[in-house]
Amino acid sequence: MDDSLNHLLPFLLRPQNVARYEEGVVVIGDRRKYPFEQAFVHCPDVESAAQAIEQMVTQGGGPWQVAVLALAMAARQAAGLSADEQRLRLEQARTRLVRTRPTNTALARRLDEAMTAANQAIDRGEPAEQAILDWFEQTRTAIYRDYRVRAEFGAGLVADGDGILTMCFAETAFIMAMALAWQSGKRIRVYTPETRPYLQGARLTAPSLHELGIPVQVIGDSMPAYLMSRGMVQKYFTAADLVTLDGHVVNKIGTFQLAIAAHYHAIPYFVFSWGPDRKSPTRDSIVIETRNPDEMKQCRGVPTTSSDIDALYPAFDITPPHLVAGIITEHGVLSPYDLKRYFG
Amino acid sequence: MDDSLNHLLPFLLRPQNVARYEEGVVVIGDRRKYPFEQAFVHCPDVESAAQAIEQMVTQGGGPWQVAVLALAMAARQAAGLSADEQRLRLEQARTRLVRTRPTNTALARRLDEAMTAANQAIDRGEPAEQAILDWFEQTRTAIYRDYRVRAEFGAGLVADGDGILTMCFAETAFIMAMALAWQSGKRIRVYTPETRPYLQGARLTAPSLHELGIPVQVIGDSMPAYLMSRGMVQKYFTAADLVTLDGHVVNKIGTFQLAIAAHYHAIPYFVFSWGPDRKSPTRDSIVIETRNPDEMKQCRGVPTTSSDIDALYPAFDITPPHLVAGIITEHGVLSPYDLKRYFG
Repeated sequence: MDDSLNHLLPFLLRPQNVARYEEGVVVIGDRRKYPFEQAFVHCPDVESAAQAIEQMVTQGGGPWQVAVLALAMAARQAAGLSADEQRLRLEQARTRLVRTRPTNTALARRLDEAMTAANQAIDRGEPAEQAILDWFEQTRTAIYRDYRVRAEFGAGLVADGDGILTMCFAETAFIMAMALAWQSGKRIRVYTPETRPYLQGARLTAPSLHELGIPVQVIGDSMPAYLMSRGMVQKYFTAADLVTLDGHVVNKIGTFQLAIAAHYHAIPYFVFSWGPDRKSPTRDSIVIETRNPDEMKQCRGVPTTSSDIDALYPAFDITPPHLVAGIITEHGVLSPYDLKRYFG
Repeated sequence: MDDSLNHLLPFLLRPQNVARYEEGVVVIGDRRKYPFEQAFVHCPDVESAAQAIEQMVTQGGGPWQVAVLALAMAARQAAGLSADEQRLRLEQARTRLVRTRPTNTALARRLDEAMTAANQAIDRGEPAEQAILDWFEQTRTAIYRDYRVRAEFGAGLVADGDGILTMCFAETAFIMAMALAWQSGKRIRVYTPETRPYLQGARLTAPSLHELGIPVQVIGDSMPAYLMSRGMVQKYFTAADLVTLDGHVVNKIGTFQLAIAAHYHAIPYFVFSWGPDRKSPTRDSIVIETRNPDEMKQCRGVPTTSSDIDALYPAFDITPPHLVAGIITEHGVLSPYDLKRYFG
């Protein structure tokens, strides 16, 4: 990886701290424990890697990296077997890994691409593990280059003195955009809703911005509209778990509620995305992951209500295109109504 | 108190569990620990009662009761002194108690009325303590009668099959309204945002409704808009800490954000209130209490971010009248634009 990005990347987003491959073991930065601990989870097989994704050890740009490295692990463990048996083992691993995140189709797409590289290597009688790792390294380098391009577009939208609202942990492109804006002398202030139940805003976004020296304040998930009404917010930025070809944005639950509040206050909402999912033409094609409601009844392991009370935990929501001012892609800040022209 | 309301009142809202006077000691139901413990805080003097209000031992309809009972305690402790000295002590107590809640002007208004009763007793050479306690009992009985009247109006707004959204702990009139609707055979379901940072929705509202047998689910503060978009919410009800004469609603932070989301989805928003504050003509007259930001960095004592991160904690927000479908008062469900006619 290119070290020249390090002044734009906090601890959490440096590639080696997201996920890495150590002699057939996938090592994952544990975002559940950050910032209280800088811990890593070691996964020696596909099942433990899949469970790590399901248990939210990583999120955002992490799951696809873990999934592809887990596929390399499956290839390594099948290395001595026949070509057919290797293909079967890889297919089993792929199926298990895709199941970890039904909403985020980027994970499935990247696994398919890595599978293609692996199968081509098997056809040639070469080690599939190395082919997957080569594909991974190449793809990750391209992705960080893409982050940088989108971060420049994002920073260009920020004005000196802006109050910036975000939601959850909008990851590398957003953090880089804020770093570029700040380092170019724009005096910004970022408000990060804590993002219940897993507190990604309080635990990941706020400490990452703080580490880069950018003024940031944690707020409750119910506070953004009030800040907007006081003139404290000029722009709203999030990432997206998925964008449909017709411009619907799927992201962490709460994103939609804040997009409505932003629209009410005439505040533009911008979305960092590497582009729409060609397999998701409209909102009807989206599967919203519903997680175990018990996760909504605790905060860092402490109960928040009686054990006999019911709860609900839809993990994502859908923001319609008329609430979106722009989708920030490698092609620029696009209208959500114009994605087909670039990605269709 | 009238026991006939008990089938409409959960543990938390029965008068003796809100605040009571035991031989010169104010005993307060500790809502910070509910539902994990049914604990009470004993306050032997005005300062400890004031601190109990500030530390959120009680909230909603509780603080004014604690404040007036604390005033009775001050009167008891000054009982042997000259009339002038008694008045001075009461005035000192009042000043301290008003300072506990700058946003909720009902507390100040009720303290003034109790002061009047006390001063009249002192003029007559009678015990001020008993005059305050008599005024308290009379006022509380009238208030529970008023709760019942407003609960009937509220229940009348609910249709069979409704999904009901609320925020924070909308207290007696709301809980009674849901109980009346449910007991009359309307199959309702209530969604209670947990209400960070103190979790009143998860800890107080949900268990209170559950105790009365009403279906209820805890959700995150960022989830209501998603539920609305799925057609799961038909009505939105909250209490109000203050309503201005021109129809602005001051309530727990987050109320405004959900009112915007409800308006976007064409869902009516109703507010239980005992009427506007005549001393608050417009939103400019409102003082929003900003609480210690450290309170936003924990959940039940567990840290939610690094200690070196800044936070913000405005405790209330203001919802403008055009987002309010009706203010539920003893006079009926009033337009927020028509309050002056009844209360001006």
